Amino acid sequence: MSTPLTHPTSFTLRDLRQAYSAAGEQAPALAGRIMADIRQRSEALRDHNIWIHLLSEREVAPYIDALVGRDPATLPLYGVPFAIKDNIDLAGIPTTAACPAYAYTPENSATVVKQLIAAGAVPVGKTNLDQFATGLVGTRSPWGPGKNSFHPEMVSGGSSAGSSLAVALGLASFSLGTDTAGSGRVPACFNNLVGLKPSIGLLSSTGMLPACRSLDCISIFALNCDDANEVLAVAEGQDDSDAYSRANPFSNRARHYGQQQGGLTLGVMPPEQLEFFGHGGYADAYKASLERIAEAGITLVEVDMSAFVEAARLLYEGPWVTERYIATRSIIEQRPEQMHEVTRAIISGGATPSAIDAFTAQYRLKALRQMAQKVLDSVDALLTPTAGRPYSIAELEADPITLNSNLGYYTNYMNLFDLAGLAVPTGFADHNGMAMPFGLTLVGEAFSDRWLLSIGNRLQQIFQLPLGKHLADYQPLVESPAAVLQRVSVVVCG
Amino acid sequence: MSTPLTHPTSFTLRDLRQAYSAAGEQAPALAGRIMADIRQRSEALRDHNIWIHLLSEREVAPYIDALVGRDPATLPLYGVPFAIKDNIDLAGIPTTAACPAYAYTPENSATVVKQLIAAGAVPVGKTNLDQFATGLVGTRSPWGPGKNSFHPEMVSGGSSAGSSLAVALGLASFSLGTDTAGSGRVPACFNNLVGLKPSIGLLSSTGMLPACRSLDCISIFALNCDDANEVLAVAEGQDDSDAYSRANPFSNRARHYGQQQGGLTLGVMPPEQLEFFGHGGYADAYKASLERIAEAGITLVEVDMSAFVEAARLLYEGPWVTERYIATRSIIEQRPEQMHEVTRAIISGGATPSAIDAFTAQYRLKALRQMAQKVLDSVDALLTPTAGRPYSIAELEADPITLNSNLGYYTNYMNLFDLAGLAVPTGFADHNGMAMPFGLTLVGEAFSDRWLLSIGNRLQQIFQLPLGKHLADYQPLVESPAAVLQRVSVVVCG
Repeated sequence: MSTPLTHPTSFTLRDLRQAYSAAGEQAPALAGRIMADIRQRSEALRDHNIWIHLLSEREVAPYIDALVGRDPATLPLYGVPFAIKDNIDLAGIPTTAACPAYAYTPENSATVVKQLIAAGAVPVGKTNLDQFATGLVGTRSPWGPGKNSFHPEMVSGGSSAGSSLAVALGLASFSLGTDTAGSGRVPACFNNLVGLKPSIGLLSSTGMLPACRSLDCISIFALNCDDANEVLAVAEGQDDSDAYSRANPFSNRARHYGQQQGGLTLGVMPPEQLEFFGHGGYADAYKASLERIAEAGITLVEVDMSAFVEAARLLYEGPWVTERYIATRSIIEQRPEQMHEVTRAIISGGATPSAIDAFTAQYRLKALRQMAQKVLDSVDALLTPTAGRPYSIAELEADPITLNSNLGYYTNYMNLFDLAGLAVPTGFADHNGMAMPFGLTLVGEAFSDRWLLSIGNRLQQIFQLPLGKHLADYQPLVESPAAVLQRVSVVVCG
Repeated sequence: MSTPLTHPTSFTLRDLRQAYSAAGEQAPALAGRIMADIRQRSEALRDHNIWIHLLSEREVAPYIDALVGRDPATLPLYGVPFAIKDNIDLAGIPTTAACPAYAYTPENSATVVKQLIAAGAVPVGKTNLDQFATGLVGTRSPWGPGKNSFHPEMVSGGSSAGSSLAVALGLASFSLGTDTAGSGRVPACFNNLVGLKPSIGLLSSTGMLPACRSLDCISIFALNCDDANEVLAVAEGQDDSDAYSRANPFSNRARHYGQQQGGLTLGVMPPEQLEFFGHGGYADAYKASLERIAEAGITLVEVDMSAFVEAARLLYEGPWVTERYIATRSIIEQRPEQMHEVTRAIISGGATPSAIDAFTAQYRLKALRQMAQKVLDSVDALLTPTAGRPYSIAELEADPITLNSNLGYYTNYMNLFDLAGLAVPTGFADHNGMAMPFGLTLVGEAFSDRWLLSIGNRLQQIFQLPLGKHLADYQPLVESPAAVLQRVSVVVCG
C-alpha cells in the first residue's frame, strides 16, 4: 500500500517538508517528480534565460538516489531543489562564469554546495549571470539577458540574474548567488525575493570564482527569511581552504534567529541623499514602505549616510577594479575578444592603477569606514532602498555602464565596509502602469546576519506580500529556531 | 619647614612616585631638579646621539608649572620624565623624522602625548631615529648613529634609537617609539628594556608621522612590565581623528594586567626556522633563556612558524614599501637629495609596484595569516628571539640593507598579521667577550596586550635582571592592578 504522491503547495521549506513527510517511503520518488516538473516548467520559461546548464534527469539522479533510506525529518534540506550561480562549482558540470572561453569542469563542488547537498538539497542547474559577476543588470551574458520574472522586458537585475529568476519563478526553493557590489540584493529587489548578502567569510568562497577576491561573498536568494536562515545554517561554516573565511561568533548562530519584537530603531537616509534616478514609482513605493513600517511601531530616524555613498563610488572608480582584472587575467590578457565587450571595457581599467592608488584608496576607505561606524552605532540597523529604480533591458543595452552604476548606488559600499545586508520585498511600485517589485535593504555590522534576518522576518510580517512571482501567500513564522537547530545539528554531527 | 629633596632611586614609576610623595609640597621643585639633572647627564652622554631636540629649562617649565597644586597621588604619571621619538608631535617643538628638510613645528601634541602630559608626565625631548622610521638599526640619521647604551660601538637598534637609549641610560622613565617593522622591539632587545608593540589602533596615531600608514603603531619602552602597563593605561584610547583607531575590548583593559600564574604553554620555533646569522652568543643566550623558562614550569612547544617568516619578507619585498613612498612623497619627489641615501634607496622602490602587485600580495598575506591562526590558536602565546644578533655600527655602515633585513627576521610580520608583541630582556649574550643584552618577544593576537604584559612580568620575575643599563635591580610587582586603575580613572574622569 503506497501513499499517493502529492506535490508541495510551494517551494518554501515548510511546504516541501510537509510534502516529503506525507510521501513517507515515496519521498525520493517525489523528489524525482519535483525535479522532472522543474525541467518541464523550465522549458516553458526558456525565454527568461535562467539556466546556463539545467541538469538532465541522469545528472540529477545521483542526488535523488542519495536520499533513499534517509529520513526527511533528519535532513534539513531533504529533496529541496536549489539553483547555483554559474561562477560556483558543482562537481562534474562546467563552470562558465558566463564566458564560454573560460569554462572548465570542476572535479569537486564548492564547499557551500557540498554542505547543502550533504543536507539533502538537490541541485537543479547552473544559472545565468553577468559575465564574471561584473554587473548589477543581468544583461551581460552570451546566454542572453536575464528577463525579469514579473515583466520580461525589464532587467532581472544581476549579476546573479538566473539565480533570482529560478526562485521567483518557482524552479528552485532557494539559490546561491554571489555578491561583491550588490549582485545578491538588486535581483532580489526586482523579483520580489529575500536576498541575503552574508558577512564576508561566513560562507566559504572555496569553489567560487573570485570577482574582487577581498570582497566577494556567496549569497542566498529565498522566498522568505525563515528559509534564508535555514539555508544559511547549512551553508555557513569556517573553511581552512578559504583564506577569507572567518569564525561565526556565538551571537550570530542560527539559534539567534527569530521574529524581532519590541523597540527597534532603524536609520534611514535624509531626503537629499536618496536617489531614484527620475523614477516616481520607486520614490512613492519607498515613501509608502517607510510609512507602513513606522505605523507598525518601528522608529525611523534620519542618519547621514554620505560616507556610504562616497564609499560606493570607490568600488568601480577606485583600484578595486584591479581585483577583477587579476581574477580574469588569463582571458583578458590572452583572449580579450572572448569577453563580453562591456565587461572587457570595465575590467581592462584594472590594469593601470598603481600600488600608490591602491593604498591611497584604502586610506580613504578606512576614514569613511570610521565615519560610518558612528552611524551604525547610533541605530539598530540601517534601512535603504535596495535599488533606486528598475530599467528595461532596452534601456540598459543603450547605456550599459551609467545605468548599471545607478543600480549600485545603495549597494556598492557594503563589502568595502565589511557589513552584512538583507534585501526584503516591501511592496510593488508603479512602472508605466505595471506593478514592479520594490524592496528595502537592512544593513548591519559584520556577523549581524541573524539579527538582520530577524528584523527582515518582522518586515515580512508587516507587509505580508505574496512570495516570489505569486508562488504562495505570505507564511508566518511557524518553526521555532530550536527546531531548525535540531535538524542542523543532525547534519553537522552525522 | 620644608622637606629636603631626595632624588628617586631610579626612574621606575614606583621609585619616582615614592620620591614625589616624600617631597610633599616640594614635588614640583623635585620635578624641576630631576629635569635639570637629566639635561646635565644628557650632556655627558652626548656621543650616544640620543636627542634631536632636548627641551631647554624654559621649554620644560610649563609642564613643571602644571604640576603645582596637583596631588602626586592622583596623577598617575606625576612628574614622570618621558622621551618622544621625533616622528611624534610635541606642541611647539619641531618634528623632523630625522630629515631636516621635512621639519615642521606642530601646534598640537599627538593625542597620546597629550594624554600622557594630562596625567602629569613631563616631556624631556625628541629622540633620534632612522630617518622616516625606516630601519631597525638607528644609524640612518643626520644626527649620527644611535650608539648602544652598553657598548657604544654597537648599534642601538632602531628605528626608535634615541627613545630606547634615553630609557636605558636613565634620561627618561619611559619613552614613546613607533613600530611598523620592529622599531619598538629591536632597540628594546639591544638595550635591556621592555618594548611593547601594542595592538594596531590601541594607541591613537594622530600626530604621528606615518611610515606604513596601515601598519604603524606608537610603541612604549619601559624598564619593566608594570611601568609599560601603567603608561599604556594612560596612552591608550579610541580616537575619532585616527581612522585606524579601534576600541579596546574589556578583556584587554588595565584591570587584566597582573602576574600570570599557573599553566602556560608558549610556542617556539623549531631549530630549522631559527636564525642567528652566525652569532654563537645570541644562539647560546636563546637556548639558555628557554631552559630557564622551562625550569620555571612554563611549557614550551615547537610550532611551525614558516608562515610568519614568509610574511616578514613581504614587508620590504612586497608593495608595502609603497606606503612609505606615499608618506614621504613631498621629499622624495621634490627634494630627494635631502633624504638619507640608504633611506632614499629603499623608499624609492615604492613608486613602481602596481595595484595588481598590491592586491596579489594582500591575497598572499591573507593566506599566510590563516596559517598563522592555527599556530596562534594552539598555544597561549608565541615566544621568539627579538633579534637574531647584534651588529656593530661599522658593520652596519658597510652593508646597510642586508644586515638591517636580518634584524627584521623575527619582527617584520607582526603588524602585517595584526598581532601584539612584547620584547622582554632575558639575559646577556657573549659578543666578542662583551656582555650584550639579549631578549625574547612574546607574540599574541590583537588586543592581547595585557595578557602579554602579564606573561612578560612573569618572565621578568624568572630572570630578575637589572633594569636598563644597570639603573636599578629587578623590582617585583608591588602594585595591584586595582591601584593602577584607581589612578588612571582619576585622570580619565578628572
